Amino acid sequence: MVNVNTINEERLFRMLSKSSETGTIPGNGLSRLALSDQDQEMRNIYKEWCEEAGLMLRIDDLGNMYARRAGKNNLPPVVVGSHLDTQPAGGRFDGILGVLLALEVVQTLNDNGIETERPLEIVNFTNEEGARFEPPMLGSGGIAGVFDQAYVYSRKDADGFSFLEELERIGYKGEAGNRLGDFHSFLELHIEQGPILEDEDKQIGVVEGVQGINWLEVTLKGEADHAGPTPMHLRKDALMAAAEIMNQLEKNIATTDITVTVGKISVSPNSVNCVPGEAHFTVDIRSANDKLRKEAFEETKKTIRRVSEDREVGVEMTELWETEKIDFDSNITEVIENSATELGYSSKRILSGAGHDAKYVNNLGPTAMIFVPSVNGKSHVPSELTLDRDIVSGANTLYHTVLTLSKE
Amino acid sequence: MVNVNTINEERLFRMLSKSSETGTIPGNGLSRLALSDQDQEMRNIYKEWCEEAGLMLRIDDLGNMYARRAGKNNLPPVVVGSHLDTQPAGGRFDGILGVLLALEVVQTLNDNGIETERPLEIVNFTNEEGARFEPPMLGSGGIAGVFDQAYVYSRKDADGFSFLEELERIGYKGEAGNRLGDFHSFLELHIEQGPILEDEDKQIGVVEGVQGINWLEVTLKGEADHAGPTPMHLRKDALMAAAEIMNQLEKNIATTDITVTVGKISVSPNSVNCVPGEAHFTVDIRSANDKLRKEAFEETKKTIRRVSEDREVGVEMTELWETEKIDFDSNITEVIENSATELGYSSKRILSGAGHDAKYVNNLGPTAMIFVPSVNGKSHVPSELTLDRDIVSGANTLYHTVLTLSKE
Repeated sequence: MVNVNTINEERLFRMLSKSSETGTIPGNGLSRLALSDQDQEMRNIYKEWCEEAGLMLRIDDLGNMYARRAGKNNLPPVVVGSHLDTQPAGGRFDGILGVLLALEVVQTLNDNGIETERPLEIVNFTNEEGARFEPPMLGSGGIAGVFDQAYVYSRKDADGFSFLEELERIGYKGEAGNRLGDFHSFLELHIEQGPILEDEDKQIGVVEGVQGINWLEVTLKGEADHAGPTPMHLRKDALMAAAEIMNQLEKNIATTDITVTVGKISVSPNSVNCVPGEAHFTVDIRSANDKLRKEAFEETKKTIRRVSEDREVGVEMTELWETEKIDFDSNITEVIENSATELGYSSKRILSGAGHDAKYVNNLGPTAMIFVPSVNGKSHVPSELTLDRDIVSGANTLYHTVLTLSKE
Repeated sequence: MVNVNTINEERLFRMLSKSSETGTIPGNGLSRLALSDQDQEMRNIYKEWCEEAGLMLRIDDLGNMYARRAGKNNLPPVVVGSHLDTQPAGGRFDGILGVLLALEVVQTLNDNGIETERPLEIVNFTNEEGARFEPPMLGSGGIAGVFDQAYVYSRKDADGFSFLEELERIGYKGEAGNRLGDFHSFLELHIEQGPILEDEDKQIGVVEGVQGINWLEVTLKGEADHAGPTPMHLRKDALMAAAEIMNQLEKNIATTDITVTVGKISVSPNSVNCVPGEAHFTVDIRSANDKLRKEAFEETKKTIRRVSEDREVGVEMTELWETEKIDFDSNITEVIENSATELGYSSKRILSGAGHDAKYVNNLGPTAMIFVPSVNGKSHVPSELTLDRDIVSGANTLYHTVLTLSKE
């Protein structure tokens, strides 16, 4: 039975290697922003693979790609997937593993001539990263009713191109009728993007839920002055105000239960000898505890207002995004845990710190995730790495979880 | 004698108005970066005006434009000038007044049929602002021996275009033999760019010297991580380190005698949900007291190193530019002061906080500056303003100073 029980490593790493050649950047990384030429190229390759595997491909109005394998019975399918887009200087595994390992599961079923009771669908969601079109997870959020079509279509990148324009340009605008239908269960395999599995030497993370997140965009409006003749006490320096805010958020808001990240910043006029008249930055707040997170978010806004008032600097805040902590399906997490155990892999129940497509799909039906370890906990960087042996453990766990769920 | 004593206001404001139409941006500002298409257009217009005024034009190897009016005797000339380039979102007066008022002085001499004892030269220096090609004052610094030709030519803008490429492209590369020769005196009229003349209700600033300046470029190298799963204590956040540095510089280095400005900042990867792995920023330190400034500069570098070490963040510092406090020629400042007094204008002796072409020209011979008030002390912004009446006072003071100096 050994050949039934494991995926084909050689084929899997050939697919991963091909993916790593599409949008390559120095340092082994990928730059495959959603709906870019690189995303288009990867979608075309993936589409071909799906067709070669005998899957029926369909594309919905948001560019989400579904590939279906029929089951013995026309029941709601087991659905497996993630995303093929990356950060601007991202890695080769984030999201990609979840799509390509799903395809490998299908191919292993084909190899072994297994006809599952339920149909199987594998999915590539559009713009999970949110690096090109904010907010993230527009594809999965769109089908889950979090964002309506008009909102998704209207999102613009930094150069002013809209989601809709770019979706049409790369030829991946399908029909709203093709969206994900009723399903039995949804599974997403993903890299951990954190240090916990590696630290505790576990092979499989059984993901029980996702942290809550707030995103805030802040603009401070001071006064631009020449750096030379303007004495310090007469300045309204927007960047010095931003620096004080960042310091206070780090000192007073962040805790062991709350992370606070200022990931983007820019100033205007951005010249060595000009006092910055404007500063723009983002704040990302996360916690496994919604109550603590909401309090931290309110305190963050208070801090920003207080520092701005003290410095007589104007302030505009836009709440870009909020998502509550969510709990995944306990039946699926149990199946994942049992599959890992049966295969002889060590596992740990864990909470996701990052947002994932599974988070929104969870609104539609029973959902859970499988994590594989990230070397040094790194992700969203070219050096992002999951070891081959961990990829194989993940793929086999996914395969056996699908086998079990598709019998239900 | 009244017609001999004053410049032609109507002609002067016509020239200023034409300049304000070249590189216009919203809010009444100008974007006329050195060696850009807009700079080329303005140079062409200015060249035509110089030729119409009967001046002999020559251009040196750095693109500095000299227009000469013969004198009764072939003695070293009185030289008057400034620059026509602006900041990316600059005003209509900074530098521009110094060039166009010099041309108006020549035209008034022509109107009145005055042949001066000494020749007169008016100058437009290249890239005073340093906003496109750093450091500032490449044209005047180049002829003063502060920068050699190869260095000036090799400077690159943010898009990778070199000074030499762009100088050739706009057709303003002349001969090194055309550089400014021996001169009797150099005069630069400029807006104050600070609040002092306006506050004290003075019409003319008699500029006795220029503050010393240090520019430092800093790169902090932490570790890029996903914002979600990385706990605060495991982060090496380059931007949080930069924020702490900025706070400490503001609190501990800046005083009433020392200004500290962080004018430029950027982070990488610059994504809402990524902990910044790198932060780049500049520090500008100025003082009228060289000893205090040098101490502040050393303390600044120590602060940057200490914070980086505490946070285990790598640091690279590049000293972009240093210039000592300089003193202008006391004979010329006396002539300026007397001219203002004779014309009935109030005046005040003042020190410049900003760098100017006159600062480098001072290396070559007797030099001084005339300041006119800046409304609210603002410059390097579209709303930069000097009132018409103050422009006229400045032009007449310049005219009479030239008349006196050209007799010496």
